[in-house]
Amino acid sequence: MKIIVDAMSGDNAPVEIVKGALEARAEAGADVVLTGRGEDILRCIDSLGMGKLPQGVEISDATEVIDMDDDPATAVRVKKDASMTVGLNMLRDGHGDAMVSAGSTGALLSGATLIVKRVRGIRRAAMAPIIPNSAGGFILIDCGANTECTPEYLLQFAFMGSFYAEDALGLSAPRVALLNNGTERAKGTPLQREAYELLEKAGGEGTIKFIGNVEGKEAMLGACDVLVTDGFTGNIMLKSVEGAASLIMSELKGIYKSSIITKISALMIKKHILALRARMDSDTTGGTMLLGISKPVIKAHGSSKAPAIRGAIRQAVSAAGAATAQRLHDNMSLMTTQVRSTIASGEDGEERSENNGEPE
Amino acid sequence: MKIIVDAMSGDNAPVEIVKGALEARAEAGADVVLTGRGEDILRCIDSLGMGKLPQGVEISDATEVIDMDDDPATAVRVKKDASMTVGLNMLRDGHGDAMVSAGSTGALLSGATLIVKRVRGIRRAAMAPIIPNSAGGFILIDCGANTECTPEYLLQFAFMGSFYAEDALGLSAPRVALLNNGTERAKGTPLQREAYELLEKAGGEGTIKFIGNVEGKEAMLGACDVLVTDGFTGNIMLKSVEGAASLIMSELKGIYKSSIITKISALMIKKHILALRARMDSDTTGGTMLLGISKPVIKAHGSSKAPAIRGAIRQAVSAAGAATAQRLHDNMSLMTTQVRSTIASGEDGEERSENNGEPE
Repeated sequence: MKIIVDAMSGDNAPVEIVKGALEARAEAGADVVLTGRGEDILRCIDSLGMGKLPQGVEISDATEVIDMDDDPATAVRVKKDASMTVGLNMLRDGHGDAMVSAGSTGALLSGATLIVKRVRGIRRAAMAPIIPNSAGGFILIDCGANTECTPEYLLQFAFMGSFYAEDALGLSAPRVALLNNGTERAKGTPLQREAYELLEKAGGEGTIKFIGNVEGKEAMLGACDVLVTDGFTGNIMLKSVEGAASLIMSELKGIYKSSIITKISALMIKKHILALRARMDSDTTGGTMLLGISKPVIKAHGSSKAPAIRGAIRQAVSAAGAATAQRLHDNMSLMTTQVRSTIASGEDGEERSENNGEPE
Repeated sequence: MKIIVDAMSGDNAPVEIVKGALEARAEAGADVVLTGRGEDILRCIDSLGMGKLPQGVEISDATEVIDMDDDPATAVRVKKDASMTVGLNMLRDGHGDAMVSAGSTGALLSGATLIVKRVRGIRRAAMAPIIPNSAGGFILIDCGANTECTPEYLLQFAFMGSFYAEDALGLSAPRVALLNNGTERAKGTPLQREAYELLEKAGGEGTIKFIGNVEGKEAMLGACDVLVTDGFTGNIMLKSVEGAASLIMSELKGIYKSSIITKISALMIKKHILALRARMDSDTTGGTMLLGISKPVIKAHGSSKAPAIRGAIRQAVSAAGAATAQRLHDNMSLMTTQVRSTIASGEDGEERSENNGEPE
């Protein structure tokens, strides 16, 4: 197995990316291809105390880098020799089994859709991070790829999330829920009400296990394994949870620093608190799967350091071993609806570029 | 000053409500009127060790109780002699300066709109809880009263929230932000984009201080004093924050219980952790203002015990002393827009009942 790693994108590229990739190579047993400026990458490898390229590590030269100032919708077309573009082309052409990038989310999403393409029949790719909850974690889909959604998108997200939960969380029959402002079926906006009907029908057909509406609080307390929503609402949930966690961890720090007694107390419990902080902190965990793309693409956090890159590569190895795209293909008839929804699809920049990737 | 307290609504009514009201009476110096079954209320007072009605406490007899099975939109019309209905009528008629109820949110919202009425020109009442953040707290408006909103509603929420932040948080020129999935002005759905323009214009006119889009994480870390959103999104944020806080506090408890060492550590820090838990827990704090109603109505949490009722009564006293309704009235010309939005107002049960309260 071979994982393509965009070595030049992210706040800590290339040093931390290269470091994480070499560590993952040693640990996961998968080969890695680093895309980017060969000279820079070799200098990183040298600075890590390795004179030459370790076995199982390749470099694929790319002279450009896509950064946050580039228009996400057109970045891979404008910068054809960027580390991200080169990586996506390699993935499409079979020169790797999965790809990891800590670059611009929008550029990666548009680029993956344009170059690697969506699974045929999938309307939109979605971002699906694993959110910590009392049961370990659940998959939130979508959390930012599609600001405006139709009920059919949400139906497809449910299947994508369910298959991914089986692979990534090791669950059989993951509990799929719709994020809503109450549990009654009539809750929410027309989007939630129409999606509820489609999800209920899909649940009745037995391929996914739809358990109804779930509120944000119950999701955090373990009520579901997959939480389906539009990208706007999912983003608000994700960021609110991150903010609340960050607030509490920072208040705890303040408490521990407040006196001699609390400082001693902190020493006694330090490793547990650090583990909890790491669990709640997206920066230290792995990456977010872009689901619906025909091959596995993982977005690592922009601020990723080596451990997060290692985690994202582990995810990539696991995703490359799963047959999610094939399962989506096999179940496509259950995931498309001929009924014209009253809710039109939103068309922003990123989404237009996705349409170019595969005309609908 | 006299505060009307619905003694019969909520999970712990009437005992905890009566207890909280009597404590608030002693502490805040405001008189209280308890609405509900006189016999039950007198029995509670007796069980608290007081033989007779304390000075400054009245009972207003009401034979019925609105419960969770009643249709929120029609509850106060069907149960004319319910403790909530009687309280709202007293508030309208000037037999009290503010009202507190731990009853059904929907029934209280519809009832307040029907009986007490909105400030003339205000399109929708909104729920505005104070959410803890690193700076103390910010006001989230709306968080559940209006699932679907127009940009004009959001403009009015901004004014309502800003005036309330001045009164409740003691701020001058509170920083008003729009909850969005990014900070750029083009972010979000058409609702956010249209609201942004209205808010920017209002900010330019100087009555409110609009600081732009804010994401959920930054809001929790102190970026704004008032966070404006539709009731669906606000509800998702509120519940997600509650869920994350609940998850972390429960994980902490698990850590503290895990060994002798951690148990000793916990003892050393117990009072601080309990204080943090209380700060993050909506059940122990006060209530949520219904803003836009012509007189102050406070929704206490359904699971409120005496301390939360005391907190809600303190809020009621503060709100009764403020001139929020008058200020809304005085600034109404800045809060209405003649431009027909492309986004239609949603019309669900609760909202229809609001329209009956004041035809638009």
